[in-house]
Amino acid sequence: MSSHDIFLGETIGTAVLILLGGGVCAAVTLKRSKAQNAGWLAITFGWGFAVLTGAYLAGGVSGAHLNPAVTIGLAIEGGTKWSDVPLYLASQLLGAMIGAVLVWLVYYGQFHAHLTDEDVLKAHTGNGEEGMVDPKAAPKAGPVLGIFSTGPEIRNAVQNLVTEIIATIVLVLAILTQGLNDGGNGLGTLGALITALVVVGIGLSLGGPTGYAINPVRDLGPRIVHSLLPLPNKGGSDWSYAWIPVAGPLIGGALAGCIYKLF
Amino acid sequence: MSSHDIFLGETIGTAVLILLGGGVCAAVTLKRSKAQNAGWLAITFGWGFAVLTGAYLAGGVSGAHLNPAVTIGLAIEGGTKWSDVPLYLASQLLGAMIGAVLVWLVYYGQFHAHLTDEDVLKAHTGNGEEGMVDPKAAPKAGPVLGIFSTGPEIRNAVQNLVTEIIATIVLVLAILTQGLNDGGNGLGTLGALITALVVVGIGLSLGGPTGYAINPVRDLGPRIVHSLLPLPNKGGSDWSYAWIPVAGPLIGGALAGCIYKLF
Amino acid sequence: MSSHDIFLGETIGTAVLILLGGGVCAAVTLKRSKAQNAGWLAITFGWGFAVLTGAYLAGGVSGAHLNPAVTIGLAIEGGTKWSDVPLYLASQLLGAMIGAVLVWLVYYGQFHAHLTDEDVLKAHTGNGEEGMVDPKAAPKAGPVLGIFSTGPEIRNAVQNLVTEIIATIVLVLAILTQGLNDGGNGLGTLGALITALVVVGIGLSLGGPTGYAINPVRDLGPRIVHSLLPLPNKGGSDWSYAWIPVAGPLIGGALAGCIYKLF
Amino acid sequence: MSSHDIFLGETIGTAVLILLGGGVCAAVTLKRSKAQNAGWLAITFGWGFAVLTGAYLAGGVSGAHLNPAVTIGLAIEGGTKWSDVPLYLASQLLGAMIGAVLVWLVYYGQFHAHLTDEDVLKAHTGNGEEGMVDPKAAPKAGPVLGIFSTGPEIRNAVQNLVTEIIATIVLVLAILTQGLNDGGNGLGTLGALITALVVVGIGLSLGGPTGYAINPVRDLGPRIVHSLLPLPNKGGSDWSYAWIPVAGPLIGGALAGCIYKLF
Repeated sequence: MSSHDIFLGETIGTAVLILLGGGVCAAVTLKRSKAQNAGWLAITFGWGFAVLTGAYLAGGVSGAHLNPAVTIGLAIEGGTKWSDVPLYLASQLLGAMIGAVLVWLVYYGQFHAHLTDEDVLKAHTGNGEEGMVDPKAAPKAGPVLGIFSTGPEIRNAVQNLVTEIIATIVLVLAILTQGLNDGGNGLGTLGALITALVVVGIGLSLGGPTGYAINPVRDLGPRIVHSLLPLPNKGGSDWSYAWIPVAGPLIGGALAGCIYKLF
Repeated sequence: MSSHDIFLGETIGTAVLILLGGGVCAAVTLKRSKAQNAGWLAITFGWGFAVLTGAYLAGGVSGAHLNPAVTIGLAIEGGTKWSDVPLYLASQLLGAMIGAVLVWLVYYGQFHAHLTDEDVLKAHTGNGEEGMVDPKAAPKAGPVLGIFSTGPEIRNAVQNLVTEIIATIVLVLAILTQGLNDGGNGLGTLGALITALVVVGIGLSLGGPTGYAINPVRDLGPRIVHSLLPLPNKGGSDWSYAWIPVAGPLIGGALAGCIYKLF
Repeated sequence: MSSHDIFLGETIGTAVLILLGGGVCAAVTLKRSKAQNAGWLAITFGWGFAVLTGAYLAGGVSGAHLNPAVTIGLAIEGGTKWSDVPLYLASQLLGAMIGAVLVWLVYYGQFHAHLTDEDVLKAHTGNGEEGMVDPKAAPKAGPVLGIFSTGPEIRNAVQNLVTEIIATIVLVLAILTQGLNDGGNGLGTLGALITALVVVGIGLSLGGPTGYAINPVRDLGPRIVHSLLPLPNKGGSDWSYAWIPVAGPLIGGALAGCIYKLF
Repeated sequence: MSSHDIFLGETIGTAVLILLGGGVCAAVTLKRSKAQNAGWLAITFGWGFAVLTGAYLAGGVSGAHLNPAVTIGLAIEGGTKWSDVPLYLASQLLGAMIGAVLVWLVYYGQFHAHLTDEDVLKAHTGNGEEGMVDPKAAPKAGPVLGIFSTGPEIRNAVQNLVTEIIATIVLVLAILTQGLNDGGNGLGTLGALITALVVVGIGLSLGGPTGYAINPVRDLGPRIVHSLLPLPNKGGSDWSYAWIPVAGPLIGGALAGCIYKLF
């Protein structure tokens, strides 16, 4: 696989992944969106089909890792050369940032309507009904940060890390297994579908505590974009949490690679 | 591919696409339908399986474009001859109009019940609770136009165009990639399924602002039918918006063809 | 295909189809069921996966028609011998009746709890809040008939027939197309999945007016069982409507066979 | 298939099955989970994709039974040697227990928040509103037992057994059919997907009365873990019901094997 292919596939694939994944979060969160309050099933299927689309587009080009945890797992397992890893990671981060900007463009009007709505702002800053706002999360995370990055329901570094590590092990083991089945590290058409539905499953089952980043750039790229975008009343980017959805998935991906190699 | 096959496949396929796609909108909108208020997930899966059915029926006959944006993208990429394009487009528009008429036949009683219901009409014309009706949309769009055509939550030509263009690029890139994978421009069985789920994903993720036309005839054909059908109290067909879901997808399809050819 | 295979495959396959299809209606309808009020999406996916399971089990044995409309369509098209048609139909009807009995066994306690609940009976007989009961349907259909058979939201023979005919044409065209793709009239594994999702789509999109029988025995078999089962307070079996979900799908299947043969 | 492969595949596969399956129950049940109250569709799809992931991981290693009912059915049918059965069953039980522990780790904070919440405890012990608690179930089952094991809505040994037997017959027949289709007892990639969707279907359609164990270790393994874990206010493990979701699926699996062999 040439550097050109890796760069192209991972950048476009990850951009589409985040465009659709962040898009569904925008769709169910923002005012004046037809999908507002469409619920958790919509979010988990939305992210799953985001993986499907991104993996389908990039599968034949770069192998469609779209996720540093997958790249690390494949490098440990032997399916990806270590010398290619930096390019994979950089392309993925760039793609994730592009995807987050595209979400902003698609929902430009909705972002403005939501972030200038008095009820939204009152509820978020805790001047509304008491008890509706988590006192720990409120000062750190802005009212639309959840469209860009993940955040925990209960803030506890060890617990949050454990959740992300376990969820990522499941994901990367599934992808490594597929590499075995397909005789390569690329995603076949049916493999892309299975991976997408596994991601829906991980979201439904393991997404409750932290919002299942399971992908470092899926969280970090959009968080950087959130901190840069000129959104009114956007609030903080919660940088104190940012290391967990980076470290957890990387540890999980590495562990999955080791588990797979051992057995 | 013969002209006969193109005409037959695109007309029947697009008719089924719009019958099922418009059908799910009727199902969740109209009074006396068992599916009333079934929600956004029902709409997005309904449209996805509409694509599946239409593409499955027409795949072996005409290649199942069912969408001028796909035809333009394939023509630029080289998979479809430019001389076939007019026939594809005309067949698609005819099929979309037939599909919209079929929706009317299937939901004949429900249309009548809905459009003669006092609560529906009161809410729509703004004589009901204030704030429930968008003052910009109300005078233009009738109470069942949403079953036929798309409309924006926030009316802004540039934003609405950008949303439709980006969403269509994702769709057409996925279909062009599949053409690569299958060695042809026809939809294989698994390809039809993937495309269908990609459309569910686009709906969940990018449908919030404009209702994701992503197909000129999907919007224009049923809008023409809406303006012609003898529905009581049907209201306006919102022609001032009609150019956006035509222009946006065409631009998006052309851009996808160019992006695909470049890389 | 031997008579033995046809009998076995169609009886078992249709029994499983109705067990799971009727089962989901019981699940979302009855008191003391964990799935009560799970909604229209649950019903449509439940019926779709009922088709998947039945078709998967019977596919390699009898071709998995499971539906007289499919058998008629295939006979007209030429994929099934006319001399086999009576055995197909009889086996399907027997299977549908067995399936309906199995639903009763699985939900035995729930049926009793539901049909002896005062609130349920009051609401159904119209002694509760006025306006909650359709005056035309009430005297004819018992409170659990909807678990066995379909019924229209608006009772109009012509409209209800048209709805069932159009929905069945879509179904049978899809199955005939698959026969073309697979070079036989049996359901392949992927074909069973596609057909199942097409049925979900038909349910979501065209099920609103009549509850989409699209299969004569799916309605008639369980209706016969409803009239025979010793359920307390079960009410009428609405025989005046029973001919429509038989005639409509048969006409639709025959039309689909003709359409397919013409083109 | 070597003993090593059976042990490894069944233990890891069943652990992942229960991690994701128990996980979705935790996700929709527990306070401070993003998925709380996501509904029955989320539960059934979550369990289905849990089967997909577990079967996909273990398919090429041990044939991915992940369920004593499947192992018994395959042993009767002839696809699995009787001498391998004890190892299959022991590995499955071990895997199920590991999976349940992993659910506890992933939702550690949520378990604590839920089980120390006064409203939760009040409602569960029946000191809250009367009629909200089943008097038969309350003293036996703790407030989070449903995350680990199944329980009936109406407690009746014969009815509950019948429900589990019928549901398991459907499952095991589908898996045996697949063995036929694939020429082996292992799950192919597409087979894993079909099985997963059949499980979604069984859940939607037959899960209402007992919560569809359809797998002895899926119920017993987590129940043992529930009785051992140091959860505050965890309440009883309802051992009086525990034999039903073991016996029912075993009988169902054996019957499916006999039915399959007969025909």
